Amino acid sequence: MISILQYYNNELRRLSIKELNQALHQHQGIIWVDLDDPLEAEEETILVSLFDFHPLAIEDCQGGRTEDEGHPPKVEDFGDYLFIIFNPVEAVAAGENGENAHGFEIRTSQLSAFLTKGVLVTHHYKAMRSINFASQLVGKNPQILGRGPDYLFHMIIDDLVDNYTPILDRLDESIDRMEEEVFHRPAQETMVSILQMKRNITTIRRVGLYQREMLNRLSRGEFPLITQDEMIYYRNVYDHLVRMTDLADSYRDTVGGLLDAYLSVTSNRLNQIMKVLTLISTIFLPLSVITGFFGMNFAYLPGLNWEYGVLAATIFMGLVATGMLWFFKRNKWV
Amino acid sequence: MISILQYYNNELRRLSIKELNQALHQHQGIIWVDLDDPLEAEEETILVSLFDFHPLAIEDCQGGRTEDEGHPPKVEDFGDYLFIIFNPVEAVAAGENGENAHGFEIRTSQLSAFLTKGVLVTHHYKAMRSINFASQLVGKNPQILGRGPDYLFHMIIDDLVDNYTPILDRLDESIDRMEEEVFHRPAQETMVSILQMKRNITTIRRVGLYQREMLNRLSRGEFPLITQDEMIYYRNVYDHLVRMTDLADSYRDTVGGLLDAYLSVTSNRLNQIMKVLTLISTIFLPLSVITGFFGMNFAYLPGLNWEYGVLAATIFMGLVATGMLWFFKRNKWV
Amino acid sequence: MISILQYYNNELRRLSIKELNQALHQHQGIIWVDLDDPLEAEEETILVSLFDFHPLAIEDCQGGRTEDEGHPPKVEDFGDYLFIIFNPVEAVAAGENGENAHGFEIRTSQLSAFLTKGVLVTHHYKAMRSINFASQLVGKNPQILGRGPDYLFHMIIDDLVDNYTPILDRLDESIDRMEEEVFHRPAQETMVSILQMKRNITTIRRVGLYQREMLNRLSRGEFPLITQDEMIYYRNVYDHLVRMTDLADSYRDTVGGLLDAYLSVTSNRLNQIMKVLTLISTIFLPLSVITGFFGMNFAYLPGLNWEYGVLAATIFMGLVATGMLWFFKRNKWV
Amino acid sequence: MISILQYYNNELRRLSIKELNQALHQHQGIIWVDLDDPLEAEEETILVSLFDFHPLAIEDCQGGRTEDEGHPPKVEDFGDYLFIIFNPVEAVAAGENGENAHGFEIRTSQLSAFLTKGVLVTHHYKAMRSINFASQLVGKNPQILGRGPDYLFHMIIDDLVDNYTPILDRLDESIDRMEEEVFHRPAQETMVSILQMKRNITTIRRVGLYQREMLNRLSRGEFPLITQDEMIYYRNVYDHLVRMTDLADSYRDTVGGLLDAYLSVTSNRLNQIMKVLTLISTIFLPLSVITGFFGMNFAYLPGLNWEYGVLAATIFMGLVATGMLWFFKRNKWV
Amino acid sequence: MISILQYYNNELRRLSIKELNQALHQHQGIIWVDLDDPLEAEEETILVSLFDFHPLAIEDCQGGRTEDEGHPPKVEDFGDYLFIIFNPVEAVAAGENGENAHGFEIRTSQLSAFLTKGVLVTHHYKAMRSINFASQLVGKNPQILGRGPDYLFHMIIDDLVDNYTPILDRLDESIDRMEEEVFHRPAQETMVSILQMKRNITTIRRVGLYQREMLNRLSRGEFPLITQDEMIYYRNVYDHLVRMTDLADSYRDTVGGLLDAYLSVTSNRLNQIMKVLTLISTIFLPLSVITGFFGMNFAYLPGLNWEYGVLAATIFMGLVATGMLWFFKRNKWV
Repeated sequence: MISILQYYNNELRRLSIKELNQALHQHQGIIWVDLDDPLEAEEETILVSLFDFHPLAIEDCQGGRTEDEGHPPKVEDFGDYLFIIFNPVEAVAAGENGENAHGFEIRTSQLSAFLTKGVLVTHHYKAMRSINFASQLVGKNPQILGRGPDYLFHMIIDDLVDNYTPILDRLDESIDRMEEEVFHRPAQETMVSILQMKRNITTIRRVGLYQREMLNRLSRGEFPLITQDEMIYYRNVYDHLVRMTDLADSYRDTVGGLLDAYLSVTSNRLNQIMKVLTLISTIFLPLSVITGFFGMNFAYLPGLNWEYGVLAATIFMGLVATGMLWFFKRNKWV
Repeated sequence: MISILQYYNNELRRLSIKELNQALHQHQGIIWVDLDDPLEAEEETILVSLFDFHPLAIEDCQGGRTEDEGHPPKVEDFGDYLFIIFNPVEAVAAGENGENAHGFEIRTSQLSAFLTKGVLVTHHYKAMRSINFASQLVGKNPQILGRGPDYLFHMIIDDLVDNYTPILDRLDESIDRMEEEVFHRPAQETMVSILQMKRNITTIRRVGLYQREMLNRLSRGEFPLITQDEMIYYRNVYDHLVRMTDLADSYRDTVGGLLDAYLSVTSNRLNQIMKVLTLISTIFLPLSVITGFFGMNFAYLPGLNWEYGVLAATIFMGLVATGMLWFFKRNKWV
Repeated sequence: MISILQYYNNELRRLSIKELNQALHQHQGIIWVDLDDPLEAEEETILVSLFDFHPLAIEDCQGGRTEDEGHPPKVEDFGDYLFIIFNPVEAVAAGENGENAHGFEIRTSQLSAFLTKGVLVTHHYKAMRSINFASQLVGKNPQILGRGPDYLFHMIIDDLVDNYTPILDRLDESIDRMEEEVFHRPAQETMVSILQMKRNITTIRRVGLYQREMLNRLSRGEFPLITQDEMIYYRNVYDHLVRMTDLADSYRDTVGGLLDAYLSVTSNRLNQIMKVLTLISTIFLPLSVITGFFGMNFAYLPGLNWEYGVLAATIFMGLVATGMLWFFKRNKWV
Repeated sequence: MISILQYYNNELRRLSIKELNQALHQHQGIIWVDLDDPLEAEEETILVSLFDFHPLAIEDCQGGRTEDEGHPPKVEDFGDYLFIIFNPVEAVAAGENGENAHGFEIRTSQLSAFLTKGVLVTHHYKAMRSINFASQLVGKNPQILGRGPDYLFHMIIDDLVDNYTPILDRLDESIDRMEEEVFHRPAQETMVSILQMKRNITTIRRVGLYQREMLNRLSRGEFPLITQDEMIYYRNVYDHLVRMTDLADSYRDTVGGLLDAYLSVTSNRLNQIMKVLTLISTIFLPLSVITGFFGMNFAYLPGLNWEYGVLAATIFMGLVATGMLWFFKRNKWV
Repeated sequence: MISILQYYNNELRRLSIKELNQALHQHQGIIWVDLDDPLEAEEETILVSLFDFHPLAIEDCQGGRTEDEGHPPKVEDFGDYLFIIFNPVEAVAAGENGENAHGFEIRTSQLSAFLTKGVLVTHHYKAMRSINFASQLVGKNPQILGRGPDYLFHMIIDDLVDNYTPILDRLDESIDRMEEEVFHRPAQETMVSILQMKRNITTIRRVGLYQREMLNRLSRGEFPLITQDEMIYYRNVYDHLVRMTDLADSYRDTVGGLLDAYLSVTSNRLNQIMKVLTLISTIFLPLSVITGFFGMNFAYLPGLNWEYGVLAATIFMGLVATGMLWFFKRNKWV
């Protein structure tokens, strides 16, 4: 689906492809072309015939059709236009088994954009909340488009980056739950979940770092297509990404600590079990020898015929057991 | 609450907002405006109407209202003014459970400042000791304000950085206590405390590194609003932050060592317990077989009717036990 | 085997060495010389006599004859010509033993190239799919050669880099299988396989990083022999290598996590076994003492002659065992 | 204590503070002022009144009075003079308990220096061997002072850096002893010692790296107060520091290896003990069952009345034990 | 021993010190002076009197006399001459005990060189194969010396770097053997050997990295004494060093993996042993209770007088043992 918006003479118009062609030739106003899951023919018409973008850039756009993760973020200056790839992220329920019900996987997708003097072309195969959001905003307040394609594009990626926040919050919650589990109900699934979480954090961190670097370049005045006045807005998005990646970094540290904790808790459990085993062996093995002693068939075994023999032996066994326990307590083994 | 101080003609005056407006237009003297947990209307009046600061900067200021941690430290040059965010830290008792009574969490907050030619605007939602301290100092010695907003601002952040010291001391104490615990009373809570401490150290280190980088820039002459003469004072704050982050680094190393030590001590305990178990099994299992031997119901079992049979068997059992013990001692297993 | 292709006057011709000599002197058209496992005499003729390349570059070419891994990637500017070494990779079945049937080893080989104004010389001892592929393409569409040696060379290395993808996919599959194994059938072979995989990832990552750095230089305009127009194509190959090394990085992380998981699962198994041992000892050692007690030969042992003595003892033993089990369940040890 | 030396007209003179004042005004010769644990009044007279050094520099000097570790190394260019802080190190016996008799802690202290055209001012609160050494050398050979304050200062820090060598040697010895202990007498104290050693190495490494960076700057011609001719001497000190930090790096690696080794040796011991336990259980539990078998009170238990029953049972028990042992040996468990 | 070679008028002559003096004054031809373990007097004559090298450089040369490891690699430009230190390595048998027969330690030594216009002075205390090799080559083909001291020096260090190869091969072999040992015969000595190997790799890597950095500088045209034409040769040595350090890096990774593998194998063995222990306890403890049951002296114990009592009890015991075994198999514990 292709939607074309033009802001011209303080008015917002929705153009057909034909009108677009005309508007481009007459350099009329500011234009936003959004290709939402376009057909190959549409891509051909718009990207190749109308705008004549570089084949490699178009190839990078189209890579997003088949690949799950999309092309990693990048910005390339072709002189007349900037080609920018951004990676939105979303959380997808992992849910392979019932136990890991709160597990989720972070997936990246691809938003490609061409930024020229007066025109912004966005291109994506998956539906994007931020595009819809920008579209509505422009509908309500056409002057946003009037501020130029660089301002509009900043708005789209600012919203994309804001969408990272709920995912990071969800990661934070997961970490808290994992922490709970590690210290109170450690199980093998905990380990699996922690490893899954670690991968998620790595994904979001990697994408964040790439885009942070990219926005650093966009906000430094390296590209003339981003005007001096708009650079501060890109700097703002950069700042948000710095915070995201910072959070991701600190989550990574915490998850690393959780792994250590898990191993430690597991080894603690082993110690606990060994203590019980030792305690029981220590108390009952000697008693077993004592009963064995009086079970020997020696004719002259003393006390066998003594009236209080059994009592004495029982008391002796009690004393041995108590003494052992006392010795253990003293050494803090129990 | 808004407090406005003006140093003009060697005199310190407290201005109303109206007077401030006037003073700004006549460029009279040096002015310090402090917005202490301001209402939104007050922010509107001061930051937007009077000073006309950039909306993004104001947005960053206001972020501190809702967010716990505040915006990370940054400095941004808007030409006419510098916008600086600083993160004071404070230690908050963690105290979720009684066992971890000495635990605490390090929290960051946000101090925003606008530094223009002749005016310093500070903005914060939480009460700040360093602001009060600077305010008192200016009250006693108005000429401090007379040295310019850059000097005054240096004084505020110098005091903020000095406030890190007691927190680092507290971390140091905690580490000593943890070390004690790890080697003499290791428990699962120790592990929890160590992980908490690690997070605290990471927090203070991260904030410190950001601010260190920021002060490096402030003291390098990159910003014309910081005069040549004052740069050395910013360098001094930078030096303090270098020491803080150095300390944090060495604490991090020590805490990493503590984790290793904890695992090692735990595994040592396991070894200790296993030794006792082995010792007891080793002594009593053979004895059990011996008593079992003479407990067999064979008619021709030798020695059963011998007067000293029991004695001989008992002595034999004693010898076996002693020999085992000796063998163990020799191999240093006990 | 030496194959020489010339594109001249819109025509593709296959030259003999003699014709090559002539064409070089007359600077006719674009020429591609491919030395596929050449004899030393052929190398002498082409590289030394005809082109007079630097002895050190020729030595680096020939290093690939005896060395398994080939010279690491590099690019060297000799003024008149660029000397470039590229490392294709291939997966070789490891298969030392039957258990590790899906194991494979990643091997690197060497493709050397000399890029001059109008001539591309490629040199390799192993057959290269990408060379054949380029050769066929040029056969079908001679104008590819007509775009210059830099464009042709870009095509060869682009295909080489594309050949990394199936290997990375195979690594990905191996990782999935390993993950399965680690959590469900951990064995010592799993560990061996993981270590082998780690080595493979390190190899591909190292080669990838080298070539990425090299392509970064080739696409930055550092070398005049790569024309402005072709740089974007080299940038494209660079982009592919960035994705490869990124994937390799994330695989490395995952494999590191697998090692942790393996150790954790192993230690979990130990805990499991210890629990069973403890359970059994805990139940049967006390029972053994009870039977021992009534096996003692005391004359006055109570209950021996009581009609329901055995029953009472048996019930008592059952109660002890059940109590123990209940105590264990309550503590979640079983 | 303040000592002032002047080299003027090929003569060495010891000046009073008054004479110093005069000499400074007349720019006579080369002067070295050493403040060895000065009173505050003396500091006031020399640093403030006479030389008028910057208050922040003086504050940094005086920080060394109360702080144990001294200010970290730094060099600051005040235009007329360089302010340099150096951190000498010394080994202090740790000796908290008898077991760790060879333990020691590395402490840093502070040497501050002001280097101006013709004057060197050194300032320290602790006695410094290197200052005394330089003082004696100047006494014997006044022309050393004549070569300028930069040459003299180089001599002092060169000697300070040479004093690192015996400490590094001591660390080296400790590491050897630890290695011995880890592999032959591992105990919990070993772990404590290793962690202490790690901290020591970190300290010396950190100080070394700081000073190395500082000397790199001093020897690069960044500061005009260090003449071209003397720079090579500073380079020499830099080289020494490179070797020190290299050694510290390799020690750190070795100590990291020792920690691994300790854990491995400990776990080996556990395996050793478990083997013995398994061996003993494996041999005596079956024997116990055999004796128990013939201890059963069945009337028709075969062989009880057979003359060689006991012998046969004993031989059977011996065979079972031997068979078990043989099985163990074959599996290399013993 | 001092050997002086002069190439002058297409002739190679061996000079005395006196002739050297003369030749130097008349700037005749190319001269190579080799000081092989020189006396201090000889050093004085050549380095100080004849060439007047900087005292610090001479001090660095002489450091190699007493120190085992020699000064780390460096290059220093004194204007008229370059002072270069190179570190050859050799493998020395470690052989402290018989078990570690294939162990060896990598030692570094020191080769100092002064490179001036027309003269190369080499200085070393240990005999150097590469010096002898260069000397023979110059003897056979004097024109090598004729190409200048920079070419000659390149030849010496190229050969030195080539000598790293057999050591790296030996490391590679050791790693293979260790891998074998770790997975099939792990013992404490294995751990010791691995740590030793790690140290060796660290040593060779460190030296390699230093020299690589040094050769990078030598081949970049930073020093005018290395002519444009010879730089490519230095680049070649640089390339070799890149491969060496790469190999060392990958060995380091492998050895790190071996340590992990060792710990894992050890822990696997523990699991194995625990399984056997559990199995045996699990089978014989219940049997022991059964025999104990029928060994009780109750008068009314059922079955005691039954003809097939023993048989029934034995069969019951067999069933219990078989059931246990089956249960174990099903849980994959055996």
